[in-house]
Amino acid sequence: MKVIKTVAEMQQYANEARLAGKKIGLVPTMGYLHEGHMSLVDKARFENSVVVVSIFVNPTQFAPNEDLAAYPKDFEADRKKCQEASVDVIFYPDEKEMYPNIHLTWVDVDVITKKLCGKTRPTHFRGVATVVAKLFNIIKPNKAYFGQKDYQQSLVIIKMVKDLNFDVKIVTCPIVREKDGLAMSSRNKYLSSDERKEAVVLYQSLERAKWIITEGEKRAATIKFEMKQMIQKTSGEIEYIEVLNAKNLDNLDIIKGKVLVALAVKFGKARLIDNIVIDTDMSETQSVSEYVKKHRGIFNEL
Amino acid sequence: MKVIKTVAEMQQYANEARLAGKKIGLVPTMGYLHEGHMSLVDKARFENSVVVVSIFVNPTQFAPNEDLAAYPKDFEADRKKCQEASVDVIFYPDEKEMYPNIHLTWVDVDVITKKLCGKTRPTHFRGVATVVAKLFNIIKPNKAYFGQKDYQQSLVIIKMVKDLNFDVKIVTCPIVREKDGLAMSSRNKYLSSDERKEAVVLYQSLERAKWIITEGEKRAATIKFEMKQMIQKTSGEIEYIEVLNAKNLDNLDIIKGKVLVALAVKFGKARLIDNIVIDTDMSETQSVSEYVKKHRGIFNEL
Repeated sequence: MKVIKTVAEMQQYANEARLAGKKIGLVPTMGYLHEGHMSLVDKARFENSVVVVSIFVNPTQFAPNEDLAAYPKDFEADRKKCQEASVDVIFYPDEKEMYPNIHLTWVDVDVITKKLCGKTRPTHFRGVATVVAKLFNIIKPNKAYFGQKDYQQSLVIIKMVKDLNFDVKIVTCPIVREKDGLAMSSRNKYLSSDERKEAVVLYQSLERAKWIITEGEKRAATIKFEMKQMIQKTSGEIEYIEVLNAKNLDNLDIIKGKVLVALAVKFGKARLIDNIVIDTDMSETQSVSEYVKKHRGIFNEL
Repeated sequence: MKVIKTVAEMQQYANEARLAGKKIGLVPTMGYLHEGHMSLVDKARFENSVVVVSIFVNPTQFAPNEDLAAYPKDFEADRKKCQEASVDVIFYPDEKEMYPNIHLTWVDVDVITKKLCGKTRPTHFRGVATVVAKLFNIIKPNKAYFGQKDYQQSLVIIKMVKDLNFDVKIVTCPIVREKDGLAMSSRNKYLSSDERKEAVVLYQSLERAKWIITEGEKRAATIKFEMKQMIQKTSGEIEYIEVLNAKNLDNLDIIKGKVLVALAVKFGKARLIDNIVIDTDMSETQSVSEYVKKHRGIFNEL
């Protein structure tokens, strides 16, 4: 496994791999890798001849008041995990390498970045789209892998790829959860042990939403109210609970089609997000596994 | 010579050419090709194994009050010129192919787009940067060729390429002029025969600026005043006359280093632009040809 730290060397590696007819799979990360990341790596390993994991805590997607400085890092552990997962290259540039000059160019995706996390993090997705565009130009992947936990991020990247004609297939993979249901996240490290116990309520409230939708509830307000009730029993501070059209993030009063239930809740220093996509057109007689298979595949249809 | 009209076919062609180890040179145009464009094609032909000319009148770089509908077109003449210049591919998509869905993603270069043409055309360079990013992703050039007449555009593209790590070398080529000095432009077609005669004043005012700078004038205001005096003797309506730092478009009161003298003047329906780059650090004993060679090379140093 190679660790490449410069843009020039990475581009040269990518050009040589492409010239040799190899398919490059990219897993873009901010490091502090967990099983969620590694599920993307495994998928990439299965589908490509070359797997590149990028590790870069991108400053332009953090606002000044956010956790850039505190963001957890452990390169040696990350390196070991990548090695064990048969990764070919870790692209591990520093900030000066990624932003060497006064940076003036932004990739901005309108409309879908104004909802959900975009409301409290107005420059976040601009930073994400910009750095992903940079990584695509540096690593030249055939496919790139993103986790569904950052559902809105995947939607933004998919839209950017379509609008700017990037020749990259975006693959979105299911959320990987702890045994009790908490979605894996590098930011779970911020949780105290009491907060960790309470944090499972994000998942539980989503399961509740799924249940009442399966039982026939169609009113978004009712679904959100039930979730809010559950979370308010904990110390969690709700940033948003939303029930939206999963394809375009349009607001819904009465749910139909593919629906995204998403929430952001703060526990102490940890701002956690989670979501579920539910196909409300699904026949009630479908088995759970068919159902999961179906709604996990949603990204490929977007 | 192939004429390719779809993104999918163009990407496949580019991928196959790249896989075969070929170097792709791109000349992006809005068609109605003149000798200025063809000088870019000749340069691209000399430096690459595959030459692609794109012809697309990009709607997103025109404001609603501008000349999108009137922009001159003659595909058959363009095709003939490309054929004679040994072009390999004309990429000739229609609007639906380039913008098939609601377009939400913009590539925005800050600061340098706010000056010169950006003042009266505030969304112009956003449209240019976005469509050039799309063309780079579709055609996958090793090198792309731009004319110095659109100096600010070249600067914007060079900055975008650096900031977003596009693996494309930008080559900027000197302005090609009519016998009397008028810079070649598809928009010269809009000029009546009287306006055509008067329009040479853009070039003449730039020559005057060069002369008084060579004679030792350092004050930007004086240079601009002399140019203005000349143009006001015609029916031309001045949009701007600027004397700026050629590298970053910073304002200058006293000129030094590489200086851009640029202007935009309207004659009837035709909004014409022209410019000259002067290296004021140049020794006075340099020959004119050395001087021209030097300041024409400025883009490669940016």
